[in-house]
Amino acid sequence: MKKLLNDPEQAVHESLEGFALAHPNDIKLHRDPLFVTRATPAPHGTVALISGGGTGHEPLHTGFVGDGMLDAAVPGAVFSAPTPDQIVAAINEVHTGAGALLIVKNYTGDVLNFDMAVELTEADGIDISTVLVNDDVAVEDSTFTAGRRGVAGTLLVEKIAGASATRGDDLAAVTEVAQRVIDNVASMGVALTAPTVPHVGRPSFDLLDDEIEIGIGIHGEPGRRREKFADANAITEAILDPVLSDLNLNDGEQVLLFVNGMGATPLSELYLVYGRAHKLLAERGVQVTRSLVGDYVTSLEMQGASITVLRLDDELTSLWDAPVTTPALRWT
Amino acid sequence: MKKLLNDPEQAVHESLEGFALAHPNDIKLHRDPLFVTRATPAPHGTVALISGGGTGHEPLHTGFVGDGMLDAAVPGAVFSAPTPDQIVAAINEVHTGAGALLIVKNYTGDVLNFDMAVELTEADGIDISTVLVNDDVAVEDSTFTAGRRGVAGTLLVEKIAGASATRGDDLAAVTEVAQRVIDNVASMGVALTAPTVPHVGRPSFDLLDDEIEIGIGIHGEPGRRREKFADANAITEAILDPVLSDLNLNDGEQVLLFVNGMGATPLSELYLVYGRAHKLLAERGVQVTRSLVGDYVTSLEMQGASITVLRLDDELTSLWDAPVTTPALRWT
Repeated sequence: MKKLLNDPEQAVHESLEGFALAHPNDIKLHRDPLFVTRATPAPHGTVALISGGGTGHEPLHTGFVGDGMLDAAVPGAVFSAPTPDQIVAAINEVHTGAGALLIVKNYTGDVLNFDMAVELTEADGIDISTVLVNDDVAVEDSTFTAGRRGVAGTLLVEKIAGASATRGDDLAAVTEVAQRVIDNVASMGVALTAPTVPHVGRPSFDLLDDEIEIGIGIHGEPGRRREKFADANAITEAILDPVLSDLNLNDGEQVLLFVNGMGATPLSELYLVYGRAHKLLAERGVQVTRSLVGDYVTSLEMQGASITVLRLDDELTSLWDAPVTTPALRWT
Repeated sequence: MKKLLNDPEQAVHESLEGFALAHPNDIKLHRDPLFVTRATPAPHGTVALISGGGTGHEPLHTGFVGDGMLDAAVPGAVFSAPTPDQIVAAINEVHTGAGALLIVKNYTGDVLNFDMAVELTEADGIDISTVLVNDDVAVEDSTFTAGRRGVAGTLLVEKIAGASATRGDDLAAVTEVAQRVIDNVASMGVALTAPTVPHVGRPSFDLLDDEIEIGIGIHGEPGRRREKFADANAITEAILDPVLSDLNLNDGEQVLLFVNGMGATPLSELYLVYGRAHKLLAERGVQVTRSLVGDYVTSLEMQGASITVLRLDDELTSLWDAPVTTPALRWT
């Protein structure tokens, strides 16, 4: 295993120290317990948005902390949920009296620890609601999950709910918007190679030189099937079809199309996949009105990609377009 | 070789079609010959900025076309220079009467073809100047280069010269600013694994499981030496030291520190390297006042990173901070 690390046990901490030094205007690192908040707190009376999860998916979630998106992100160890005390400390740090929305990817460890944090903070009188992101249509139940897994769609929930909170919506309204994204988003991924977790030191799974895993999870969890490697057009169709079936899109509907790199896929290949997916959507009469292409929800140095489609309405579109200033997503 | 491609010969074209569909507000794709321009032309009388080079380094250069940066980018085949006719067509498309600056990475093929394009366009009466980026301090002369190679520092030249052109500087002034960046920037990289060029189908070089290449080029050209794999702190020092020696920075000087991923390095590792480099600079009394961390000048799916340091003055800092709206770099 060759990685740009020192002691694997210190890697999360050391990486976050570098992250904090690189983005002093956007974020602030809290060390004990470990979490990241906006450098400049949101105005009093704004619903606080908190997410988190295992390290290894960067820029998710820490890279999305900032004006217009998350108020705090709580990183766990590599591919491991953050602990309740970290989550509680983050909630206490960023809530401004208008309650907090927790955005949780549907993995058993995350769900348990965020739930425990909710119990602890509700005892303090803080109003909390939680949404569970479960956009991965590949499989029901998986290695670390009951029900569907939460993957790249999480970014869209965080961006759009962040815009809702920023414009002053109350907790019920922000929660409704977040849930509306979840109800209208679907994703599926493919792996060409496996990632290696630093403290494990060997690849998370074995793939032959001519094999791919269709429906891969972001922690190397098995997908739907293993196939012989095919060309990009065939692979794009294989992962886009289940997404479209799940969403049951109608002729003339508008969507956001998000092609996400898993960590080690050249950007030129992601654009090639995007182009094919765009064409397939057009053939079904679906109109791509917003796009995102790049490495946003990764799985260490896994080679592969996922496709996420979000059904848009006017409000979701305008919330997507709202300004955002974070280390990894930034527009006006 | 597993890559998200169809016919390797069509990959550049197919990828750019996807790129154009994803960023219709930022860029426009020209197909015959192939080049990318801003979607909205710069105002009349603005110096035109044109760069280009082999595909496989994305987002460089196409991702940096837009308001505040490049007016056009000319992509070659993978790791191959664009042809003179492409460059000439791009210049003719974007020049607005105030001349054009060509930003060329110092590789023999690029230098030859851009030079030929200059001859052809000067015959048409267009005022052209050229700067050669040669920031890689690893080696003098290399596989495709006489003199030093041009690597990640190219992005800084494009951003800062773009801001100079955008504020209305004339050709001589924009060229002076670009050359000032070149004179004050230095880079060096390390490879943990080799990239695979699609139409070749096997890795560009061989590295043992416990070896790294210190001073790697962005096309897999040999660096200074092969070493046993060490920890991130040692590797960071090994590539930062030659950069600092080259720049001969003095106590109290301000710099931009740019840690660039080569394609397959997890972002968390890049931040870890950034943190160490920041600390080493601080120990020498050098102040990091601007930062950039991410995959910006890549080498397909090579695992590795480079460190770039730019000595800043007040003007370069303010030009770096100037607004930019491109697919890959965007701030206000």
